[in-house]
Amino acid sequence: MKKQRISIWGSTGSIGTQTLEVIREHSDQFEIITLAANKNIEKIYQQAREIQAKRVILASEADSVWKSRFRELGIRFETGAEALIASAASGEEDMVVNGLAGAAGLVCTVKAIQSGTHIALANKEVLVMAGALINRLLEKNQVRMVPVDSEHSAVFQCLSGESERSIRRIILTASGGPFRHFSLNDLKQVTVDQALAHPNWSMGPKITIDSATMVNKALEIIEARWLFHVSPSQIEVMIHPQSIIHSMVEFVDGSIKAQLSVPDMRVPIAYALSCPGRQTLPFGSLDLTQSYQLELIPPDMERFPVLKLARQVLETGGTAPTVFNGADEIAVQAFLQKKIGFTQILECVEEALNRHQTIRQPDLEQILDSDREARETVRQFLRSMD
Amino acid sequence: MKKQRISIWGSTGSIGTQTLEVIREHSDQFEIITLAANKNIEKIYQQAREIQAKRVILASEADSVWKSRFRELGIRFETGAEALIASAASGEEDMVVNGLAGAAGLVCTVKAIQSGTHIALANKEVLVMAGALINRLLEKNQVRMVPVDSEHSAVFQCLSGESERSIRRIILTASGGPFRHFSLNDLKQVTVDQALAHPNWSMGPKITIDSATMVNKALEIIEARWLFHVSPSQIEVMIHPQSIIHSMVEFVDGSIKAQLSVPDMRVPIAYALSCPGRQTLPFGSLDLTQSYQLELIPPDMERFPVLKLARQVLETGGTAPTVFNGADEIAVQAFLQKKIGFTQILECVEEALNRHQTIRQPDLEQILDSDREARETVRQFLRSMD
Repeated sequence: MKKQRISIWGSTGSIGTQTLEVIREHSDQFEIITLAANKNIEKIYQQAREIQAKRVILASEADSVWKSRFRELGIRFETGAEALIASAASGEEDMVVNGLAGAAGLVCTVKAIQSGTHIALANKEVLVMAGALINRLLEKNQVRMVPVDSEHSAVFQCLSGESERSIRRIILTASGGPFRHFSLNDLKQVTVDQALAHPNWSMGPKITIDSATMVNKALEIIEARWLFHVSPSQIEVMIHPQSIIHSMVEFVDGSIKAQLSVPDMRVPIAYALSCPGRQTLPFGSLDLTQSYQLELIPPDMERFPVLKLARQVLETGGTAPTVFNGADEIAVQAFLQKKIGFTQILECVEEALNRHQTIRQPDLEQILDSDREARETVRQFLRSMD
Repeated sequence: MKKQRISIWGSTGSIGTQTLEVIREHSDQFEIITLAANKNIEKIYQQAREIQAKRVILASEADSVWKSRFRELGIRFETGAEALIASAASGEEDMVVNGLAGAAGLVCTVKAIQSGTHIALANKEVLVMAGALINRLLEKNQVRMVPVDSEHSAVFQCLSGESERSIRRIILTASGGPFRHFSLNDLKQVTVDQALAHPNWSMGPKITIDSATMVNKALEIIEARWLFHVSPSQIEVMIHPQSIIHSMVEFVDGSIKAQLSVPDMRVPIAYALSCPGRQTLPFGSLDLTQSYQLELIPPDMERFPVLKLARQVLETGGTAPTVFNGADEIAVQAFLQKKIGFTQILECVEEALNRHQTIRQPDLEQILDSDREARETVRQFLRSMD
């Protein structure tokens, strides 16, 4: 069997390292083309050496000592954002695992799709910022985009063998974060340390804060709309504190399928790499000698209005989701730097949406402009609050 | 689109009437060939008239007044077990919904398969009695058997788009019946009325008692082994008192799919009729404005040893499951007639198994002989207890 040629963007991050763990289990089936990361050169060097990657790209600059170390291994080593874009456009791999954080991955993803590369998407901002555009490109280039996010992977797995026309509703589950029992007033007092302590998943700081504010669930609603071609009103959220049911699909006949597992990102990563087939993995089976209490609770829209906002943003369409995403990135940074309070994150996002003039059918440039504009709006707004 | 030609065996029973409700929702897609029932001529006459069936078969005799009423409608009317066997062998339908109770449906099912008719199976005894034989016939005649039982339909739905080779475990859920908190001693005192009151499903008396004794779950383990080509050790049971998760499949990568719905047999019936597609049905969507507590609890093998017995019976193979099934039918009758206590049902089954000389690869005659022998053994055993 021919090996699948894989590149991993964000290889030193949480998704990247777990992708390499999955690949190590079935190393005979994969060939690693490019590893790309932001700045952790020590780690990416170890990874590239072990997995015998063909090329390494670092967003930051590197000194000549490192350059010669890569040269000694016969690994092509490049630096800078342009290098990643050029690599994405080369089409050298069959599939890219895009584990980049935030808006950074959009241009590279567009280039990869245009060069016929399939995408395993952990970088949900790509679809949030530019869902309609991406879907047009996927169709035009006959390229598959498969989700890595545990919720969307759950939906995707539930849809195996089913037709998208049979979907009645998609039900995304949400752990509810650490503050699901907090009153609106308590939420205002939440500190950075409290917000960074997620009960079930270990993730980067941005996504952990987004989980606590439920902005992450809002982003997931937007992502689901584009991945599964459903209308915003077909996407529901249920709180599921145990994080074992990763999401569900209800079909037109009233039947629901759910995907469950121990909370381990390697399960959805492996599915993205091997779907529609499955690979034997040793990572974790649900322990059937113990009892489980799986709760499903309707979310309180009063305390988490961002879920409603997500649907409104989708109904508005065009560049509205782009602005939602860009504004949140800057607002979360400000919260992490202790410049604003927890509930002010959403205020910043709403401010940016209010000030934005939506562009109906934006091209890539207009999307990137709207993203920049939203960030600048939030920065201004933050300065005005000083 | 060509209409699907359907026959319904046991049309006046619970499965049969619900099958007709499903068909009524999409009557343009189905043509009813044969309706067959045991003795409720009034009901089958109403059904046949409304749905414009081509033929009606009644197991019992009927008087000439009824015969002429069917004649007036232009419906072919026949009586007796041989008439059903002849109809099964005719191959006039594309699919039979076999909703017969107990061992009665085996010979007809064999005839239907041999004449190329697909089977929607609610009559699990067919596979329990003769699983290996049925699977050989299905393969030889290129015929599909799809499950109607809610648990097996759940597994079947979870396997849509998946390969059977990817199955790690099948997890059948069990409501646990009304007595799941009873001690062994309490179980001995259970009355017929208590056992007939199932909390979640409304079913016939035999299957309701089998649910209370967990013999039904044992029969389902045996059925699952043949439907999904897994080994007995790959089939687990979890108690799920809410009857919303109808069963689950764990795959080799640790991912689990579950199928959920309100407890309504029309959902699995509809899936059996339209799979791998789905039809829009108005019967019942899970209400997402309410909270759910879904429990999964490992079964207590001490109090419900029949689950262990099911696996042993499968390991023994040959005619052992046939005997298990036949003995249980007679023992449940005796319990319903208040001749034996609740826990004596299983004693009868064990007695019949102990006295039986297993035939390794039985043909249909040997299976029917073993069934008769098991019944006679239990009857003798009951007489000896008088």
